[in-house]
This record gives sequence, structure tokens and C-alpha cells, in this order.
Amino acid sequence: MLNIGILGATGYAGEELIRLLSNHKEVKIRKIISKAYQGERYSYSYRNFVGLNECICEDLNWDTVTEDIDLLFSALPYGVLMENLTEDMMKDIKIIDIGVDYRFMNQEEYRKYYGKEHKSMELCDCFEYGLSEWNVEKIKNTKYLANPGCYATAIQLSLLPLLKENIITSDIIVDGKCGLSGGGRTLTLGTHFVEGNESVKAYKINNHPHSLEVKRGVELFLNKNINLTFTPHIIPMQRGLLITAYTQLASDLEYDHIKDIYLKYYGDKEFIQILDKGIYVETKWVKNSNMCHINFEVNKENNKLIVVAAIDNLIKGAAGQAIQNMNIMNGFDECTGLDFVPICI
Amino acid sequence: MLNIGILGATGYAGEELIRLLSNHKEVKIRKIISKAYQGERYSYSYRNFVGLNECICEDLNWDTVTEDIDLLFSALPYGVLMENLTEDMMKDIKIIDIGVDYRFMNQEEYRKYYGKEHKSMELCDCFEYGLSEWNVEKIKNTKYLANPGCYATAIQLSLLPLLKENIITSDIIVDGKCGLSGGGRTLTLGTHFVEGNESVKAYKINNHPHSLEVKRGVELFLNKNINLTFTPHIIPMQRGLLITAYTQLASDLEYDHIKDIYLKYYGDKEFIQILDKGIYVETKWVKNSNMCHINFEVNKENNKLIVVAAIDNLIKGAAGQAIQNMNIMNGFDECTGLDFVPICI
Amino acid sequence: MLNIGILGATGYAGEELIRLLSNHKEVKIRKIISKAYQGERYSYSYRNFVGLNECICEDLNWDTVTEDIDLLFSALPYGVLMENLTEDMMKDIKIIDIGVDYRFMNQEEYRKYYGKEHKSMELCDCFEYGLSEWNVEKIKNTKYLANPGCYATAIQLSLLPLLKENIITSDIIVDGKCGLSGGGRTLTLGTHFVEGNESVKAYKINNHPHSLEVKRGVELFLNKNINLTFTPHIIPMQRGLLITAYTQLASDLEYDHIKDIYLKYYGDKEFIQILDKGIYVETKWVKNSNMCHINFEVNKENNKLIVVAAIDNLIKGAAGQAIQNMNIMNGFDECTGLDFVPICI
Amino acid sequence: MLNIGILGATGYAGEELIRLLSNHKEVKIRKIISKAYQGERYSYSYRNFVGLNECICEDLNWDTVTEDIDLLFSALPYGVLMENLTEDMMKDIKIIDIGVDYRFMNQEEYRKYYGKEHKSMELCDCFEYGLSEWNVEKIKNTKYLANPGCYATAIQLSLLPLLKENIITSDIIVDGKCGLSGGGRTLTLGTHFVEGNESVKAYKINNHPHSLEVKRGVELFLNKNINLTFTPHIIPMQRGLLITAYTQLASDLEYDHIKDIYLKYYGDKEFIQILDKGIYVETKWVKNSNMCHINFEVNKENNKLIVVAAIDNLIKGAAGQAIQNMNIMNGFDECTGLDFVPICI
Repeated sequence: MLNIGILGATGYAGEELIRLLSNHKEVKIRKIISKAYQGERYSYSYRNFVGLNECICEDLNWDTVTEDIDLLFSALPYGVLMENLTEDMMKDIKIIDIGVDYRFMNQEEYRKYYGKEHKSMELCDCFEYGLSEWNVEKIKNTKYLANPGCYATAIQLSLLPLLKENIITSDIIVDGKCGLSGGGRTLTLGTHFVEGNESVKAYKINNHPHSLEVKRGVELFLNKNINLTFTPHIIPMQRGLLITAYTQLASDLEYDHIKDIYLKYYGDKEFIQILDKGIYVETKWVKNSNMCHINFEVNKENNKLIVVAAIDNLIKGAAGQAIQNMNIMNGFDECTGLDFVPICI
Repeated sequence: MLNIGILGATGYAGEELIRLLSNHKEVKIRKIISKAYQGERYSYSYRNFVGLNECICEDLNWDTVTEDIDLLFSALPYGVLMENLTEDMMKDIKIIDIGVDYRFMNQEEYRKYYGKEHKSMELCDCFEYGLSEWNVEKIKNTKYLANPGCYATAIQLSLLPLLKENIITSDIIVDGKCGLSGGGRTLTLGTHFVEGNESVKAYKINNHPHSLEVKRGVELFLNKNINLTFTPHIIPMQRGLLITAYTQLASDLEYDHIKDIYLKYYGDKEFIQILDKGIYVETKWVKNSNMCHINFEVNKENNKLIVVAAIDNLIKGAAGQAIQNMNIMNGFDECTGLDFVPICI
Repeated sequence: MLNIGILGATGYAGEELIRLLSNHKEVKIRKIISKAYQGERYSYSYRNFVGLNECICEDLNWDTVTEDIDLLFSALPYGVLMENLTEDMMKDIKIIDIGVDYRFMNQEEYRKYYGKEHKSMELCDCFEYGLSEWNVEKIKNTKYLANPGCYATAIQLSLLPLLKENIITSDIIVDGKCGLSGGGRTLTLGTHFVEGNESVKAYKINNHPHSLEVKRGVELFLNKNINLTFTPHIIPMQRGLLITAYTQLASDLEYDHIKDIYLKYYGDKEFIQILDKGIYVETKWVKNSNMCHINFEVNKENNKLIVVAAIDNLIKGAAGQAIQNMNIMNGFDECTGLDFVPICI
Repeated sequence: MLNIGILGATGYAGEELIRLLSNHKEVKIRKIISKAYQGERYSYSYRNFVGLNECICEDLNWDTVTEDIDLLFSALPYGVLMENLTEDMMKDIKIIDIGVDYRFMNQEEYRKYYGKEHKSMELCDCFEYGLSEWNVEKIKNTKYLANPGCYATAIQLSLLPLLKENIITSDIIVDGKCGLSGGGRTLTLGTHFVEGNESVKAYKINNHPHSLEVKRGVELFLNKNINLTFTPHIIPMQRGLLITAYTQLASDLEYDHIKDIYLKYYGDKEFIQILDKGIYVETKWVKNSNMCHINFEVNKENNKLIVVAAIDNLIKGAAGQAIQNMNIMNGFDECTGLDFVPICI
């Protein structure tokens, strides 16, 4: 059994980790760490655990956090892990960071997006990027993993086959929609029920860090540059993320040709499904799962290829992909703990 | 492996059965029967199954429905099973009916609530009533089971310990609230999104059949009569059911005394949790689970005892309790396939 | 034109006041007072006012608050007005307090419900209770008005005719359901979208101050005592409030007899509608209006009378009734500014 | 007073027409026509009218429909008006068609989108296109008006100033999001609460008729062609529509320059507001109003201009703009009946 510790256990990604790992046969959760709820039972914070898990939340002590565990998941807000992580702490454990601190950025970019200096930028190189379906060999052999962002996951899974096969041009527009759990458990006026319900808005136009993450991912996997315009929107629902990508085909291509390309890359992937022609992608069908649904349409008039993809932002976009990566890193079957039929209604 | 057939597979209870049974290690789903979607892949109707279950829905043929299976779940609308079930069909299989046709009623009552004559009333006696925690011995030994209604489950689980210990009087008021999945997948104006969202209403005041079901359950288990007034309400959410029961204590009793009574009956029950004093019961914590959460308050001024209980109407109120009953009927561990930490957000 | 000032202008009741008064032909809003948004345009806080009202929010200065206005609405949180209001301030203006500070309580009760000492309890006697349909003569002649609470409004409107005509006994149970705007604009975990959506809970069981307010109202209007058990519930919607009252008929009465009683009191009231027999009361039909819809059912088996009433918690339950009271206090037509057909979808 | 008749009165656009016209001082509603609810009180179908409007719905009789009225609003589903309208009927009344039958299409296009032959295509030329802010002179002088579609309204209002001033290229991508009232009151599985809630999907990709309507509008107003790619999405909310337009600036332009262009066209328009820089457009702020909010961002890296606009799909996108057009056609103040502060929560 792999002994697991979880930092940031009472955020939504932390809760999903603990929930999914509770049903994972190869691991044992040894430490649930939460500053906000230290000393409380975890089931006090999340009562779906009442009668099922009565562990006490531990305080976060950086000196002892790595003791007694083999692998640490960090689901901390940006800026916390980078201020505290040291090479010494990393020696004896594996780390999967669901946060953003070790994803690709340089000092200047980190400051731009997060408003402060990154204190351990030198450690970034130790972390492999955990887009599971595209980086499996590196993931197998790393001890430290930076788990992708939710939008970055859906966008890259949609675009990488098309870009790799050179069938689209580099000028790409992505319109994203995500439920309010994407904003986490921190209270804000915009996520107050009465303010967030029954409304939709665009935000961080031209300014979302996942845009940079996608560009870097395309460089990493394909050694290409793209010109990406990305606008996220907040949708009045709890979970689920859908992206609509507008691309230009480099030449006349039929639906079936493009479908073959997707199947070439994803035909054997358990967690990526290309839907039948004409079937619309909807977030409800991937809710509570590690699944990514993809479909697309070709506009014959102007040779645009429109791709739609849906994931659960907290699972394939966070905790689920993190577990998938843990499975790969530790030689477990990639689907362990994630191979259930998900709830849809 | 137990071979399973499911009638009414494309309604919400049917879908939950198939979803939960997909993760159940002791059974194999052999027949998915749906008139509406016959010949279609099940995953066409419920796309959360895409890539996970590509079975084809069979048409409903009463002559062959019992072939090749050991146990048949029926999740048909009222009136269909009672018109077609025969003793002959019942010989070789076990039956769990999630519908209402074999729950307690006499001819006159059936006509009152469902507007037609019951065609096989004589078979009712073959069916045991499946309130799992209160009828386990009978359930163990029956081949035919009538699964309780959702409201009837929550109300009886709340009241039976109090009534059995004679601490409340027989005059009981229950106010129920349930999400719109309680109305099933049939299209109606009231369940049209724009009409059902952002509104709450009472309906079937004094006229809900679960009221009768509870009275009969109390007679069955305790040999007592109660004077029950029950009003259900429809709440703008997908799933979840909460009941608030207003009872009169027969004598002065403290919170702790009542808690001890609940623990006497439910302390060892996996699927019933009495929450800590002062913790409010909320449907979200039992969503997607077979769990029932209960808590209560005593009004010292007038000796009223107010009990609040929550279940997932589609699981403990339908498919989950049906599986729990299947487990009991077949000697499996009662929790098999139901012992996961549920999704809450 | 009546010159109006509004305290607590950026809470939800404050916003509804300003919105409704913007369409009121007899008044002019002179002061929009908000500590939180002082110096900002009001339309920055509520962008439905962009292009329609570009006033600046003033800071709250108790020394000058009464200058230049004829009537002050206070929509402050509990405890603020009672700490600052003085007889001197009251001399030259009328006051309508939407808050709770001058509603009926004595020192001990105030402390019990609000955890602090009331600093100006002696002023309570100056305030008339503004249940418009039941206190019109007193309201006409007062300068100071305590506007009823939302639940207290719906419950009293439902029960007072029945109690006045002595057709029900004094033991009354009321189950309340209200949308999340009832909790105001203050951020809490329970009103965070992801936590409040798709769930229902009971809260403040036996402990909601509106229960006391109803008892006092019944004493005031009918000189009677009732034994009221009241449990509020939070429902995942923005606005709307529904109460279900469970009463015992003192004698056998038919539907029509009871309907006649309601019509005797409300037949000529613009803002109270008794629905046709069998038509369910739903909050959506009174949303965004000053209307109260009432209907009821008699249970012939046990002589229970179940009454269901719905209001918009922010309008008839707060800002709308306050304007109705302002109209009465100032000799305007009672319906002025409130006589529109409301939005329902 | 203008005497009004309304066809299709019990659909959502019909209801909004009647609701808004009830508060309009220049008109009198003489006929409420609804096949589905003929002979019923209108307030039976929409109970927000109880006590406010107790008219009876008339059956639709094409022979007499134009009697006793000056102006007929048609809010019928596609295909009904075009099959029945005749020159003779048009002689004595004005007509405002909220439906699609007289919006721009030729026979081939109508067949493509609506699957049948248009029976009165020759009447299309009689109808002026009612994009109020862009066609006011024609609207003033017409008797017959084709009211724009909801998406077509938001997209054209966003793009026309940019296209007219030649600051963007003709290759335009628009991503649309609309609440479920956009699908009308007809029952479908996709608009069943349990299926439509908590999910988002793209649909009619490359195939929405409003895409054609926008192209024709640009031709009509600017005599230009655009290459428009439009994808609508359904969002789990009742009303509200937001579009995000991705355009390419023809040259380097600053935010302020573009803002000046918008103000040049819309600075004096009551119903179009350009929000302050950095303020996000959200549908909730225009809910229940005839308002259109617009804002935009320039991406300096790739010279993309992203425009976001929000309207209420049932008001500015249907009934409200129809009333605005009626006002213009009849010489009333353009804002009559539409100049209220809208509800936002």
C-alpha cells in the first residue's frame, strides 16, 4: 500500500482526492492536512464522509509533512508550496502538485499572473508535466509531477492531435465555460449563490494563465508555437467544464478523416471518448468522472473546424488526473480507482 | 455471479440501478429492457456510459423476459407490471419491484391513487416490503420484494424508533421536500426547466400515496396506527429528499435520551447516520449515496420533537435500497456495491 | 414629491427599495447611503442601474442622515439602527425600518436572538407594526414603522383570518422554505454557490425570531396566544418564500366555508389572492411582486387544515411591503409603484 | 390608445409581450389568442397575472383575427404565420412578427433551416427588419415589421459599429450562450429540468439560422459580406444571452479608440450601454430589461478584439425590442413601457 498525505485537503480538489482515494485499492490515506480545519474531523468539513471517514485534520507543519508517507498530493492555493518546498523535503517522497506553482512559468510570468516572486523556481525542472495521455513515459519515471490545469487539460487534449498532424493552422480561438467550483471554496461576491446563479459572464479575457500553460504544452509535446486566444466564462452550475475551439483547417478535410486522427491518438485511451457524429458534447455526461468527451464539426463553407470537449473540472481537470498520474508513477493500472460509471443526474 | 435483468432501464431509477450494479462485484447485467429505446445502445440514452457499457436495449417481451436471468429489477411506471406479471413468470426468478404495484394497497386504494383496477392483486402477498433496516429477516427469505417509496423510506426510518419506544403520540405531521428527479423522466410542464427552476410548491396535499404506505408500514412493523398528515413539496434541484417530521413527545425527554433510542436501532447500521447535536441535515451530504442522515431538536416549550432526515431519492429512495435488498436476499454483504464515499458537490 | 433616504442601500432589501422606488411617481430618492460602497456609484454595486441611476453612495453619518429628507428607510443589519437612533433624529422625519430592531422584542428576547443588549428599547413603542393589511389605521397615523419580517408576513397573512374567526385551534405548525437571498449579501459558506446549490436544509429549528414575531402579532391583532412551532428551510433558489401551515380545525368545515372567510378579509385586497380550488401555490408566480398567493386543503379524515402561502421574500417580505406602508403613511394610493405585472420566468 | 392583438400569447415571448404591454400607457390589449389555452383565463396559464388580468384566451381564427385591433403581434412558432398570412389581412392593421417567417430568407434557405416550403415568400418584402438602433427610419415608416432573433440582435449590435468603421476584418467568430427559455415552452428531453440543469452544451454548430440573419443584416446595413462562424450553447439558467465575439483588428488600435467608436453609435441610445473598462458583462444585469450591455478587450499580442455583449433573450431579444419597434412605428417615445429599472436578483 502506498501511504498518502494530502495538503489542502479541505478545498474542493482536496476533497475530491480524498473521496476518490477512499475507493482506491492500492493506497492508504495517512495524513489529511488542513490549516483551516486542523483538529476537526474531516467529516465535519465534508459531511458526505460521516460514518465513512472519521480522521482528524492535521495542521500543516512543513518540518514533518513528509514523514510516514510515500507520496504527497498538494492541493494548496498558488504561492504556498513554492514558498515552502525544499530539495530536502523532496528526497524521500514523491510529490504530485495539483496547484500551479511548478507548471512551466518563468519568474516574470509568475509575477504577472500571481503578483509575487516565485521562491523556488529552480525546482520547476524537477517536475514533469502530467498531461497523462501525452506524457506517459516521463510520468512513469518521475518522482515529481505538476498536474495540469483544468482548462489546459481540455484544450490540449482537443488540439494536440490536430496540431501534431498539421491539419490546422496555428491561429486558434478557444471559448471556455466552467461551473463555479472552478473558483474554489474561497468566499467571493461573484460565487455567492444569489450573485452567481442565473447568470453567465466572461472574465480574465486575454489574461488567464491556462492560456500560457497550453502554449507551453504545445511547445513541449510538439515543439510548435501557437497563437492562442482564450476566454473563460463562468456558468451557473457546480461542476463541469466545456471548451469550444475554433480552428482553421490547413486544407479541405472531411469529418471522417479528422475522426481517424482523433482515434489514432485516443482510440485506446480509456478516459477519452470521441462521440459519434452529430452527438453533442455535454458536461453532464462526464460529471463526476475522469472522462473527456470530444466531438467536432467541419464548416465546409469556410473550412473552420470547431472542436468541443468536456471534462469534470475537479476530476479530469484536477484530482482524477492526479490519481491517474499517481497510478502511472507507481506502476498501478492507469484506471485504478477511476473506472466507475459516473453519476449523471 | 447473479444474472440480472432490468425493466424500465431508461427511467432515472433504472439508470441508477445500472450505474450502481456496474460497480457491483457479485452481479452481471444480462438484460437492459426499455421499450422507448429498444435497439439503441444504452449509452445513447445515457452518455455517461459511453465507452463503459455499449449494451443494446432490448424490447420488453413478457414471454421471454425471465429467461437467462436470476433476478429481475422492475423500474416500470405504475400499472405496467401488475398488468403483466403472472405466477408462471415468477417461478424461476427473483423479483425486486421498485415500482408501486405490489406495495400494500387494496383494490379500492389502488383505484383511488392510480385510477385503474389492479389486475394481479392476489400476487401482492408474495411480496415482502423492503424497508431494509426494519425487515431484514423477511427480506432474507423472500424471492419477491416490493421496494419502498422514497418519501416512505425517509419517513419510516425517522419515525419507527420513536413509535416503537412509545415516546411520541400518534398525531404526526410530515413536510417533505424533493428534487425534480422525483417526477421521473416523463416530460411535463411542471418539470420543464424554465417552469421548475427557481420555484417551490406543495402538491398532492393530503393525497400522496406514500402517506398510506407509511401508515401500512407502521402497522406492519409495530402493529400501531398513526394519524399522519403529509405534504410533499417540489424543490428546484435534481436529486435529494428531505423530510421534516413534527411530533409530540408523550413525556418530557431530553435530546440525549432520544439520541440513545436512535442509536439503539441504528448504531450499527451502515446506511443510517444520526448527526451530532446541532449539525443540520442537508441533502447534499447524502447525494449519490445509500445513506440516510437524521437529526432532531426538542422544543422544550411545547414538547414537540422535530426530526429531519435526508436521503437521495434515487438511491436510498429507489435503486440503492433495491440493491441493498438484493444483497440481503442473496446472502451478499449488505453494503456490496454501495460502500463508496459519495460525491457531494 | 417625498424626499427619501435609504440606509443599507447595497444589501438586497436596499437594492429592491431603490429599484422599486425608481419607478414610484410620488418620491424622489435623495440619499443612497452605504458604508461598504461609499464614494462609488450605486450602479457599480448593482449594474442593472447602469445608465439609469448614476448616483454616488454616501457614507453613513448619523449627525446628518436626516437632513434634506422626509422619510428614511433603514435596511441595516440588526443592531446598527438601535445603537444609533435617537429621539432627536426622529423629530423631523418619518422612518420605516425594514430591519428587526424595533419589532416587538423585550430586552431579554433581543439578547437571546441577537446576542447583545438593545440600546434604545424605549423607542420601540414609537414604532407601529407594518403588517399592511392588518394594521392600516395605525399605519396611516404613525411616523415610525417597523416593517414585518418575511416569514412573519406570510405566516400572519395565512393564519390571522382563521384565528380571528376561531375556526382553528391554537396549536399550529408552520414549515417554511425560502431562497438564499433570505440570507442577504453577506458571504458565508452556506450561501457559497457550490455549497448552497442543489441542496435543502432545515435550520434554526425552534429558534427563529420570526416565530416570536408571529406570536406577538397574533396577540396584537387578536389578543390571543398561539402555540407555534416553526421550522425554516433554505431552498436552492434566489428569491421566493413559501410556508405550509398545519392547523387543526375546531369543527367540521368545508373548503367553501373557509374560502369565504379568507375572502371576507382579503377579497378587496390588491396584494392578496386566494387561488382557485385545487390550484397549487408556487413561489414563481409571486416572484418580483408584492403579491401574496394563498390556498388551502382540508383533510376530512383528521380535520386538519393545511394552508400554503407564497410571497417574494424581498418584496412583500421586505421592500415592497415597506413601500406599501410608505404609501399608506403618506396618503398615496396603496398600490403606487407596486401595481405592475411581475416577471415569472 | 392603440388596440393590440397577440398571437401565440402563451409562449414565453407572448407572455413577456403581455406582461410588458400591461404596463404600457399607450396601448390596450384587446385580443389574447392561444390555441392551446383557448377558453381559459390567461391567468390560468400564467399565474403571475392572477388578480391583475383575467382575460380569456381566444381561439385563433384567421378570418377574424384582424378585427377590432390596430396592431397584431405574432409570437407563433415558425411556419404558422407564413401559411396563413394574406395581403388582405394586412390591409387594415400593422403587424410585428416576433417569429422567423419574414426575416430575410429565400425559399431554399427556409427549406434548409425549417424543412418546409415558405407559402408567402412574396410578402417578405413588405416587412422591414426591426433592429431598432440601426433601422429607425425604415421602422418609422413601415406597417409590417420582422423582429430580429435574440442572437442576431446581440451579435449585430456588437459588430455593426466595428464593421462600419472598417476596424475589423471580415473573418469573425462568435460563441453564444443562452438560457433555456431560448428553447421556448415546448417540452423536450433537453429542456426537462433534470436533463438541462447543471450542464452546458454546444448545439446547431455551423447550422443556426441566426448566423444567416446576421450576415444578411450586415449586408442590409453596411452592404458588406462577412465570414461568420457561430456556435450557440445552452446554459443552465432561465433567461439571459451572452455572446463573445472574436475579431481581428485591421490595424493597431487602443481600447479608447474603439470605445469612442461604440459611443459614436450608441452614446445616445437608451438601451445600449458600453460598460467601463475592465467591468465584465454579465447577463444578470440585463435580466428582465430591454438593455444591451457591451464591453471588449484588445489582445495586444495578436491584435484580436474580443467583444462581449449581453441581453435578455426574451426582452431585447424578443418582446422588448418588439415593443420598442411598436413605439417607433407609432410615434410614441421609444422607451415607453420599457424604461424601468430591471430586477437583477
